[in-house]
Amino acid sequence: MSAPIIRNICSSRRAFFHRTLSLKKRFSSSIHALIYDEYGDPTKVVQLETLNDLPLVDKKSIRIKMLASPINPADINTIQGIYPVKPPLPAVGGFEGVGEVVEIKSGASDIKVGDMVIPAINSLGTWRSQVVCPSDCVTVLPEGTPRLFAATLRVNTCTSYRMLADFQDLQAGDTVIQNAANSGAGQMAIQIAAARGLKTINIVRDRPNVDELKAHLHNLGADIVVTDTELRMSSPQKLLQGLPKPKLGLNAVGGKSAISLMKYLQNGGTMVTYGGMSKQPVTVPTGMLIFNDIKVVGYWMTRWHDNNPNSVEAARMFDELCQWSKEGRLCIPRHRLVNIKDYKSGIESAMADFTTEKQILVFDN
Amino acid sequence: MSAPIIRNICSSRRAFFHRTLSLKKRFSSSIHALIYDEYGDPTKVVQLETLNDLPLVDKKSIRIKMLASPINPADINTIQGIYPVKPPLPAVGGFEGVGEVVEIKSGASDIKVGDMVIPAINSLGTWRSQVVCPSDCVTVLPEGTPRLFAATLRVNTCTSYRMLADFQDLQAGDTVIQNAANSGAGQMAIQIAAARGLKTINIVRDRPNVDELKAHLHNLGADIVVTDTELRMSSPQKLLQGLPKPKLGLNAVGGKSAISLMKYLQNGGTMVTYGGMSKQPVTVPTGMLIFNDIKVVGYWMTRWHDNNPNSVEAARMFDELCQWSKEGRLCIPRHRLVNIKDYKSGIESAMADFTTEKQILVFDN
Repeated sequence: MSAPIIRNICSSRRAFFHRTLSLKKRFSSSIHALIYDEYGDPTKVVQLETLNDLPLVDKKSIRIKMLASPINPADINTIQGIYPVKPPLPAVGGFEGVGEVVEIKSGASDIKVGDMVIPAINSLGTWRSQVVCPSDCVTVLPEGTPRLFAATLRVNTCTSYRMLADFQDLQAGDTVIQNAANSGAGQMAIQIAAARGLKTINIVRDRPNVDELKAHLHNLGADIVVTDTELRMSSPQKLLQGLPKPKLGLNAVGGKSAISLMKYLQNGGTMVTYGGMSKQPVTVPTGMLIFNDIKVVGYWMTRWHDNNPNSVEAARMFDELCQWSKEGRLCIPRHRLVNIKDYKSGIESAMADFTTEKQILVFDN
Repeated sequence: MSAPIIRNICSSRRAFFHRTLSLKKRFSSSIHALIYDEYGDPTKVVQLETLNDLPLVDKKSIRIKMLASPINPADINTIQGIYPVKPPLPAVGGFEGVGEVVEIKSGASDIKVGDMVIPAINSLGTWRSQVVCPSDCVTVLPEGTPRLFAATLRVNTCTSYRMLADFQDLQAGDTVIQNAANSGAGQMAIQIAAARGLKTINIVRDRPNVDELKAHLHNLGADIVVTDTELRMSSPQKLLQGLPKPKLGLNAVGGKSAISLMKYLQNGGTMVTYGGMSKQPVTVPTGMLIFNDIKVVGYWMTRWHDNNPNSVEAARMFDELCQWSKEGRLCIPRHRLVNIKDYKSGIESAMADFTTEKQILVFDN
C-alpha cells in the first residue's frame, strides 16, 4: 500500500518547504509549527516548535498567514506512519487548511495580498502559523468564502462532493445511504445531498445521547438517521419509508457495517469506500456481485487532486461549494477551535472515540 | 438474491414450452427430455422422460432437433434451487445448447430448415431431443460453425468474451489474471485473450498430475500457469516474469483465492467475479479499495443477454467468436459426450470435484 506517484510529484516542492526548518533568520517574525521527526503516536511525536527562519519571498513565492487547519484522520494516520503518503522527516503536520496571503513580489502570478488561499498540493504542511511557498502551490478561493468552511474544503468537503458526483448518475429524488454519518465527510455529504435534492439514509453507531445526534443530522438535512442496531432490527421496506432503494452507498467503516449498508443498495448500485474505521475489510457476498450487480470501489481525494491539478472541473467544484457555503446551505461540521499551543488537547480529541467535533487548529500570527 | 426481471420477461414464453409436457400426441415421433418436478439433488430429482406430445409447428414457431447441450454449473445450481432463476416446475433442464431447424412453416421469419441455432432466451430447456418454440427464441449461427463450439457458446464462451471486453480497456500486451483457469469459462478466456494478443496468468488448484493440466493450458495459449500454493510462495516480481501487472482479474472462486488474485492487480485494476466455487465471499482490504483503486464487480451473462436481446453488439460478438472458432483459434474446452440416456453419469461427473472435462449431452433423434 504505497503511493509512489504522490511522493515523486511532490518531492522537489517538499524539499523546498522543509528547507524552512533549517534556514536561519531570513524573516523577522518567528513562527509556530507542529513538527514530528519520527513516525509514531501523534500525542508523543508531535512537538510545537518556534522557528525564526522563514525563507524570503521571491518572485515565484508568496508568504501566507495560516488562519485555520483541521486535524483530520489522514493527518493522524500519516504521523502514525500507516498512511500511504510518507513525508520525509522532519515534517510539519497537516494536509489542509486556509490562509491569507500577506506578502508577495510583483509579477508572482495573479495572486494578491489579502487573498484567501488553500493548498493546491498534498504536502504543504499546514499546521504552522506561516508558510512561504511557490505561488502555484495554492488555490485562491472566491471572496467572502467563510473561513472555517475554506479550512476543511480540500479534503472532507471535496471527498463528499466527488463521491456524490463520480460513481452514479444521481438525480433529485434518488437515495444515498452512508455509515459514519456523523463524521466530517458524513455531515458534509448530508448537506451536499440536500443541496442537490438527494435523499439520505444515515447510519451512526449506537452511543449515549443518540437522539441529540440524530436531531443534529436531521437539522443538516438528513432524511433518515438510524443506529447500527436499528438498521439490523429493521426491514428495508420499513426503514426506507417509501424512498427508492439507494443507488449509492458511502462506506467509511467496513466490516459488518459495510455488509449491512450494501444490502440496502438497489441492483446495479455502487458502494464507495473512503475509510475503514472498524479496521475490518469489506466483505462482499458473491451473489451480490454476480446477481445484484453491486459494484464495490474506493475513493481517495488525494488521487483525484493529483489527477486533476488546476483543472476546469476542480475550479467548478470549488466555485459551486463556496457558493453553497456563502448561501448558508453548507455549514461546517461541528468543531472546536484549538490554539496551536493547545495542540496536545486537539490531537487527543481528534483521536478519541465517538468524537463528532472536528478539531481545528488556529494560530497566533 | 432473486432475479424477478428474468422471470417476468420469460414467463409467457416459458409457459409455452411447458405446455409441451402436457399436450398429447400432436407430433408423431416421441422425444426424450430430462425433467425435474422439484428442486433438490440433481442426481435424484432429474428424470429421463419420453414424451409423445410436441406441439404442431405453426406460422410463428419452428421445430428444432437438439444436437448437443452442456451440463453447466448454473444448470446444476438451478435444479438445486439455489440459483436466482427459478423455472416453474416441472421444468426441462439446460440453459444452452445447439440444435438444427428441422421443420418450419413458410413465413416464419428468415430462418430456414438446416440452420444451426442456439437459444436466444434463458429458459428454452435444452436437455431434450427436440424443441418446438417461437422462432424469435433462437439465434441462427453462421454456416460452418463447429457444432460443439456452438453448444457452449451462449454461456461460457460469451461470459469469457464479455469479461475481457467490458471492464477494462485492454490492448495487445496487457495482462489478465484468473483463477479456476481450467474451468470451461477459464479455458475459453485463455484462448480469447490469446486471440486478442493479451497475456494471461492462470491459477489452478493444487491437484494430482498438475503438470499435465499446465501443459494443456499452455497449449491453449496460457502464458503463465501456477497453482494456488505456487502463487502464495512466489513474489509478484518473480511470477510475472517481466509481464506488466494485470489490469483485469477474473474470479470464479472467492475466499483466499480472490484475495491472492487481487494483490497482483495494478492500481486502478478491476476484479470481476463470475463464480464462487469456494463458497466463501470476496473479502477486500480497505486499503486496496482506497489507495490502490481496485474495483470489485460481478458479471452475470444472463443479465447481459437480457439487456441486449438481438442487439448489434450481440450479433457482432457471435460473428467474431464463430469466425475465431472456424479458424481454429478457439477450441472448445475438454469435454465428454454423454448420451441423454446416460444422463446420471453426466450429472455426477459435472458435480464431481476437480472435473476439467465439460459434460455435453447428445441425443438420439
